[in-house]
Amino acid sequence: MQVYLNGTYTDSNSAKISVGDRGFVFGDGVYEVTRVVNGIFFREKEHLVRLKEGLAGLKIHVKDSVLEQIPEISRELIKRNNHTEGEAAVYLQITRGTAWPRTHTFPDPEVEPTIYLASSPFTPHTELHKAGVEAITVPDIRWTRCNLKTVNLLPNTLAKQQAKEAGVNSAIMIRDGVVTESPNANIFGVKDGVLYTFPATNYILNGITRQTVLEIANDLNIPVSFNPIRLEELFDIDELFFSGTTTDIQPVTVVDGKPIGSGKPGPVVQSIQNGYNELLYK
Amino acid sequence: MQVYLNGTYTDSNSAKISVGDRGFVFGDGVYEVTRVVNGIFFREKEHLVRLKEGLAGLKIHVKDSVLEQIPEISRELIKRNNHTEGEAAVYLQITRGTAWPRTHTFPDPEVEPTIYLASSPFTPHTELHKAGVEAITVPDIRWTRCNLKTVNLLPNTLAKQQAKEAGVNSAIMIRDGVVTESPNANIFGVKDGVLYTFPATNYILNGITRQTVLEIANDLNIPVSFNPIRLEELFDIDELFFSGTTTDIQPVTVVDGKPIGSGKPGPVVQSIQNGYNELLYK
Repeated sequence: MQVYLNGTYTDSNSAKISVGDRGFVFGDGVYEVTRVVNGIFFREKEHLVRLKEGLAGLKIHVKDSVLEQIPEISRELIKRNNHTEGEAAVYLQITRGTAWPRTHTFPDPEVEPTIYLASSPFTPHTELHKAGVEAITVPDIRWTRCNLKTVNLLPNTLAKQQAKEAGVNSAIMIRDGVVTESPNANIFGVKDGVLYTFPATNYILNGITRQTVLEIANDLNIPVSFNPIRLEELFDIDELFFSGTTTDIQPVTVVDGKPIGSGKPGPVVQSIQNGYNELLYK
Repeated sequence: MQVYLNGTYTDSNSAKISVGDRGFVFGDGVYEVTRVVNGIFFREKEHLVRLKEGLAGLKIHVKDSVLEQIPEISRELIKRNNHTEGEAAVYLQITRGTAWPRTHTFPDPEVEPTIYLASSPFTPHTELHKAGVEAITVPDIRWTRCNLKTVNLLPNTLAKQQAKEAGVNSAIMIRDGVVTESPNANIFGVKDGVLYTFPATNYILNGITRQTVLEIANDLNIPVSFNPIRLEELFDIDELFFSGTTTDIQPVTVVDGKPIGSGKPGPVVQSIQNGYNELLYK
């Protein structure tokens, strides 16, 4: 598989970064994952807007002329990897670059950021989308700038691994008694026909798929509340689902071994799934 | 400068890791920095114990036979870099290794961890130790497993950079109204002859230098309290200082533009400095 690294297309096995890269020693970078269907990038502009917001949040300066090349690089990459037909995902990571000696403060003068893109074939989790998945609740132990899509992802990887070891699909993170996010997706609940989700604050990533779900809800006249779901309310709601770029719209039917609603994907999540598939595969 | 990477000594400029290294894409690793004086590693055993605790905390499995080589590798490295005389610091980082495709869950089966060591010459901040430094208070926005010395260091780098941009030496992080840590050092206060510091919980890194300070305080019959310093008490205390591997014992004399105590390094921090220098340079 070919990847793009700092101006060069190369085989993934020979794509190397310096041990002095601040991505490696500090996790000092941001990333995006974009879905590609038959060569069409889904919500590409929104991903690039969020990328810029993340770079601004970390004060990583990338020239506009460089950022403007990302769509072209992405297209060249999927062409080289034969990902222009069917489904694929493009991963993009930008770090503050390589600097010696290692210091917590930013390199002064600035160095060239590291820009890395990879594409991979993607298979939607269609069966899980139909059947629903199980999850466990875990404490949300992340920092308080979760709105930045950075590669400081240890709490996320640890929670996802904990879910795997518990024999379930994913985790539902709880901070201060309310449902925030899964390790790699946003969370929606449905109660009495109203869609509930955590507001877009510094405590969650404002997912591109989350924003799309809100658009679909608006189109379907489903009322939305940004009053977060309290843990003790979780087992009284009618439906629960994840949203994410590689998660799509994923019903969650069992949490901590107990059923949510009927224990099967409900009508609201199914209508959101239909709306989402229409946008993604149109 | 030579570094060690996965079994090989090589020039730092040619030491490269894969873009698939989980250190790069998730910050999935731990690190240690050890001081070396005339070829003698200070508190080496304690650093290795903490390294093992960090690896256990992240469930990164490194063979004992590999960990046992670290002292030998460290010595070979300082020899190759001519750091066997005078002062140096050795940086060690271990990540979960390189795995494709990128998944939040741990590689299954496990992959070989990435092991990286570098040595650099070190100059103590002797003038700052005598004069004291200024700091600002900032919110402690880190995750809640600060006891693990991981490379998920964005909140630390951002706080340190914020301090630099404010024209001061470092930051004092405040969580829930109390002083926790600086971005790269522990914090001690002195009031009426009693030494105060945050207890060794999941909210701070239990620094090797911090532990050494507690030993010195014990030897000097200075009473210690683990009742953390509240922000509103900060300007009523007599002395304040940082402790850390590259920070040594650093008096903090001004915070947010206001003097601490007399505004000069006080007698307790000076006695701790003397005790520390005796251990480090004995």
